Amino acid sequence: MIRVLFADKPSNWPRYEGPLSDAIAATGLEAEIVQPGEADPSTVDYIVYSPQGPVQDFTAYTKAKAVLNLWAGVERVVGNTTLTQPLCRMVDQGLERGMVEYVTGHVLRYHLGIDATLAQQDGVWRHDGGVPPLARNRSVVMLGLGALGKACAEALAGLGFAVTGWSRTPKEIAGITCLSGEEGLREALSRAEILVSILPDTPETTDLLNSRTLTLLPKGARIINPGRGTLIDDDALLTALGVGQVGHATLDVFRTEPLPPEHPYWAHPNVTVTPHIAAESRAETASEVIAENIRRGEAGEPFLYLVDRSRGY
Amino acid sequence: MIRVLFADKPSNWPRYEGPLSDAIAATGLEAEIVQPGEADPSTVDYIVYSPQGPVQDFTAYTKAKAVLNLWAGVERVVGNTTLTQPLCRMVDQGLERGMVEYVTGHVLRYHLGIDATLAQQDGVWRHDGGVPPLARNRSVVMLGLGALGKACAEALAGLGFAVTGWSRTPKEIAGITCLSGEEGLREALSRAEILVSILPDTPETTDLLNSRTLTLLPKGARIINPGRGTLIDDDALLTALGVGQVGHATLDVFRTEPLPPEHPYWAHPNVTVTPHIAAESRAETASEVIAENIRRGEAGEPFLYLVDRSRGY
Repeated sequence: MIRVLFADKPSNWPRYEGPLSDAIAATGLEAEIVQPGEADPSTVDYIVYSPQGPVQDFTAYTKAKAVLNLWAGVERVVGNTTLTQPLCRMVDQGLERGMVEYVTGHVLRYHLGIDATLAQQDGVWRHDGGVPPLARNRSVVMLGLGALGKACAEALAGLGFAVTGWSRTPKEIAGITCLSGEEGLREALSRAEILVSILPDTPETTDLLNSRTLTLLPKGARIINPGRGTLIDDDALLTALGVGQVGHATLDVFRTEPLPPEHPYWAHPNVTVTPHIAAESRAETASEVIAENIRRGEAGEPFLYLVDRSRGY
Repeated sequence: MIRVLFADKPSNWPRYEGPLSDAIAATGLEAEIVQPGEADPSTVDYIVYSPQGPVQDFTAYTKAKAVLNLWAGVERVVGNTTLTQPLCRMVDQGLERGMVEYVTGHVLRYHLGIDATLAQQDGVWRHDGGVPPLARNRSVVMLGLGALGKACAEALAGLGFAVTGWSRTPKEIAGITCLSGEEGLREALSRAEILVSILPDTPETTDLLNSRTLTLLPKGARIINPGRGTLIDDDALLTALGVGQVGHATLDVFRTEPLPPEHPYWAHPNVTVTPHIAAESRAETASEVIAENIRRGEAGEPFLYLVDRSRGY
């Protein structure tokens, strides 16, 4: 009987209970999943971990064969001096699929004018002129063409949208118009009826959308940002929304999270706030990765996504 | 100089002006597009027609080489005894794409819980448990697997949804679980977290969703009907919505259109009415078909989608 400690924050346990039990059972191993405090730390074989969970001192877990992080990022644990066990990060296919679903859903919401539809349930049959252009005549721009950005761009192109992608360095993706560099960014912004960013947080992307670059967008452009909150100069976006230069924004990430209740984004009629859900690990798919690593640990096979702590990732 | 009469209802002209001019120009022909009353009928070469337009007597159009219908259906013109010119119906690729976009957009809206997101802009950061299942764990059922239904089912499967299709006679579509017949319908309904129908209006489909069949759905199922209004027993649906057996419905077609302002669907908190827009001809793509038929007429080539009036279609 293998003992697995679930050391994410307790409120996530209901989401993981079924999927994690099922995924481990599917490996054929017999395992008991325990919560912190339910078992002597020295009897734990695997620690399912997250930086927001209650276990941050690994000293007492003398028998643990691995610490299996539920987060893709390891920056908050890689320097932990009590951690002597192998550390694995999460590479969750569900995260990519979730991002694709969020992006395509909100692009289609803007494309079809679903907000207006929901607001127009007043008995007036608005048929004339009520049909949006086809996706092929809707220019969508994707900032960031890493694995996630490429998957989103391809899904949108698959639905027929006219997709332009932008990345700092040149890329080629079938079916996508790929631009790069500073000049390419100006061109990309100028054609973005709907702008989606999943750029990472780097010095180059901080405030990339600012009072100067926002003016390059077509008037009334819609912005979807499930990438990083630092991308946007919030004051500049609020100004652009106020004058109609930006028509609407759907924001999933913020400089301060949770977004404070008094932040003007919440009450703004042309902003939709989502609570950092676009790139969430999914319990079903993350549990499969955890279970596979437990199987590997028991079989003496190399772990998936093992972190090289000397390199920090 | 070819003279083309635009004889759809005048309120559609703004949508067609640019696309039709562009599409005809793209053939290399020089054409003048006129409105009814602007030109002597005997000088008109082609009539762009719809059953809701002002021209229903074709007697005076002695030189016209074809009547080019903007509608797919010809039942309202095929028996017109003043019509001696060749009649072509519309086969608009844009209609299929528009249907796919409507269906995928509203399925993703339900899948992601976008209505709740829009209602929750109140400063409360609802993160825990706020992530929907992945599309692969969301069962979507498509009733009707003709050209439109197949295209919708394939688009949904391409986004990762678990798609079951149902048709009266057996079909096979890669990536879709296809069911058929009465037994298959019960099975399909029983698994429909989101049910989409684009079934045609036939004696067999009338009231197919009724007080008996609606109970087969999983509790809280969502329904999207861009097919035909006769599919649904409206009283039965309102009852099912009232007790939560059906969670929400998005309806684009109705037994009476426009849907009367006093109809309970309009004010129902769990019904979204759209004004028969899902299967609309699109000006861009329809104009390309019109222009191609004008080109063929001028080149002496056979028209596309020529109606055999002895058969009635």
